[in-house]
Amino acid sequence: MGISNAAVNSFISLTTDFGTDDIYVAAMKGIILGINPQVTIIDICHSIEPQNVGQAAFLINSAHKYFPVGTIHVIVVDPGVGSKRRALLVNSPTCFFLAPDNGILTPIIYGTNPSLQHTKSKWAQLPNGFQAFALTNPQFWHHPVSTTFHGRDIFAPVAAHLSLGEKAESFGEQVRKVRTHSIPISHTRINGEQIGQIIHIDHFGNLITNLTKNNLKGDTLHLRIAGRQIDKLSQCYADGEGLIALIGSSEHLELSIPYGSAARTLGVGIGDTVILRCT
Amino acid sequence: MGISNAAVNSFISLTTDFGTDDIYVAAMKGIILGINPQVTIIDICHSIEPQNVGQAAFLINSAHKYFPVGTIHVIVVDPGVGSKRRALLVNSPTCFFLAPDNGILTPIIYGTNPSLQHTKSKWAQLPNGFQAFALTNPQFWHHPVSTTFHGRDIFAPVAAHLSLGEKAESFGEQVRKVRTHSIPISHTRINGEQIGQIIHIDHFGNLITNLTKNNLKGDTLHLRIAGRQIDKLSQCYADGEGLIALIGSSEHLELSIPYGSAARTLGVGIGDTVILRCT
Amino acid sequence: MGISNAAVNSFISLTTDFGTDDIYVAAMKGIILGINPQVTIIDICHSIEPQNVGQAAFLINSAHKYFPVGTIHVIVVDPGVGSKRRALLVNSPTCFFLAPDNGILTPIIYGTNPSLQHTKSKWAQLPNGFQAFALTNPQFWHHPVSTTFHGRDIFAPVAAHLSLGEKAESFGEQVRKVRTHSIPISHTRINGEQIGQIIHIDHFGNLITNLTKNNLKGDTLHLRIAGRQIDKLSQCYADGEGLIALIGSSEHLELSIPYGSAARTLGVGIGDTVILRCT
Repeated sequence: MGISNAAVNSFISLTTDFGTDDIYVAAMKGIILGINPQVTIIDICHSIEPQNVGQAAFLINSAHKYFPVGTIHVIVVDPGVGSKRRALLVNSPTCFFLAPDNGILTPIIYGTNPSLQHTKSKWAQLPNGFQAFALTNPQFWHHPVSTTFHGRDIFAPVAAHLSLGEKAESFGEQVRKVRTHSIPISHTRINGEQIGQIIHIDHFGNLITNLTKNNLKGDTLHLRIAGRQIDKLSQCYADGEGLIALIGSSEHLELSIPYGSAARTLGVGIGDTVILRCT
Repeated sequence: MGISNAAVNSFISLTTDFGTDDIYVAAMKGIILGINPQVTIIDICHSIEPQNVGQAAFLINSAHKYFPVGTIHVIVVDPGVGSKRRALLVNSPTCFFLAPDNGILTPIIYGTNPSLQHTKSKWAQLPNGFQAFALTNPQFWHHPVSTTFHGRDIFAPVAAHLSLGEKAESFGEQVRKVRTHSIPISHTRINGEQIGQIIHIDHFGNLITNLTKNNLKGDTLHLRIAGRQIDKLSQCYADGEGLIALIGSSEHLELSIPYGSAARTLGVGIGDTVILRCT
Repeated sequence: MGISNAAVNSFISLTTDFGTDDIYVAAMKGIILGINPQVTIIDICHSIEPQNVGQAAFLINSAHKYFPVGTIHVIVVDPGVGSKRRALLVNSPTCFFLAPDNGILTPIIYGTNPSLQHTKSKWAQLPNGFQAFALTNPQFWHHPVSTTFHGRDIFAPVAAHLSLGEKAESFGEQVRKVRTHSIPISHTRINGEQIGQIIHIDHFGNLITNLTKNNLKGDTLHLRIAGRQIDKLSQCYADGEGLIALIGSSEHLELSIPYGSAARTLGVGIGDTVILRCT
């Protein structure tokens, strides 16, 4: 059972691939504030690569943990807008998500369950604690509804009405299955080496991998990337020189060059391989 | 007659060419909140090309429609700051605009009236429903007033006092004429072809033209741009491959390459020509 | 004695080098709003060059003057995060600052006192009107505290508790000395010429120098930069063509090419020399 949605909720967050050079984000905010003038809107990120569902999935999964219980998270990375893809409201045990049904909520709903995530985009049953509703009731939309901008015409007004205490059932029929998105997971080789990937590069050029503390076993780590080797886990950016490895703030294994850019120096990008051996 | 301005208004929007790497926008917000701590400030866009009055005019005309009645829109794209150009408060039937008197409000005040917009920047009488006031009363300014930043020293404090319910008349004398800015409009050739232009390129590389639904007559459209031809109107980005044409969320005719960038692929820019024939 | 900190404060500003492509800023906001849902958060700037303490010091010193009394300014440019560098709360006569103890508050605390600023990064006694506290009380932190992101885990929650009226003493022990950062100051040559530097380049390519009105004496100014000479002080950007000099909105001497970019045209950067002679 998801969080009760009959109470008034104060916060709406926005995550999109709209950038900040257009008026798209502002149009969503205008629609929201016209319906609920009291709500506080927080921008999480509008720099998702256009149509990059996987990147959005990683970022919203990292970010939502730091928001108050009851926050309504609107995520619009939506290459299928205007087609038959469904628009969803998903109630988690702690908050609400409004997003196209394209797998963007996979890590939030299913965590890092490899059996699911190995499989390319398909449908999956919702686990306990989650409820999903298809947004089919036009009563809560902004009209006329464009075929290219459901962020403004469907997700924003539904978020605003939800923040006013409207029940989830009002927005459309409950659904049992949602689409999943395949997310890169680490593999373990027969010799015990773990093969990970870079899944995000931050503003400082730090390389965030899909390896976490859980992958670190034993006393010593040996990490290979782009022909370089690291044999020590640093505690913070000020601890070490040149290329270092540490557990970053998202609790993922991260490679960094303090006062520099690991991404630029190593010439690597998202999807590139990291090999971890623990001894 | 413009909207009544003696009531308390809750929202101030900001549109500038200041970018987000400086403190200019923050200084405006600090001044506003010092005067009205309760007001909600919304960023519409700060990425207007420096001094590009025409781009700002298009964007604020698109954006303001989605904001609540009574919103105070502050637009500062102001190459003439510190010269004799006037600073204006314009009351429309639904909201307020604070902007330099340089034509930036032309599409909001005059719509797409070709007789006006063909003419290069000149003065025009305000139509019914609009009132304008020159901001000449220093009582509502932030002192000392710099000669280079009226956004902070005049527009921001006036917006804040207006949001507290101060009457328009208090800020300065009413004026009857304001400057207009010439805006590209479409032409119709003798053979029925309509010649339009690209007026905006969005974050996704979509090409927004100055042609709208009103230009589409008949059953079939034929569109020529940069040596390419399109013979079909798509309904949404997911509907079609390669270069497609559709009516975008601003209700303008738009060219798009889903999962790509029409601007980059076609190598076109703002001001480039689009030829439309309907049969 | 700093500002009384037992009252409820409504505003928290954020200045960081985090950029806006990651979720770092949003995580801070989520933490703050979870503790004080009523507080208003204002972004000052997130585009500080990574780890550029001097640039951050200049920008926050310019910006904080425009904010309401009692505003809590959080500044996180923090190359030493996770090391032994202290985290500070500094009460000024008008507002609060939360920042790493790395000299970022030097111009706010010490102004442009050359005797201090000539000296490379060292410790200095706080002047009258200021109080500082080391943030050592984990009761007000977000747990688990990461070693790489004190913005989220220490500064954000402390700011939120401070905004709720928690006393400064609660966050840790009072300290008497804080680190200073050397800031470029102007020199006067034996022949009366003043040697200044470019300290910031804004979004318009305007060159902001460390010379202010106080450096201008006599009737006429002669300015040399990159082989060009200017012999007149303009009043505003619309007043003059080509390269002009004027007192900008931060009250610093600034070089500008209206409708152009002085930085690009002259090919100069931060740290480059400007020579001023007044007659």
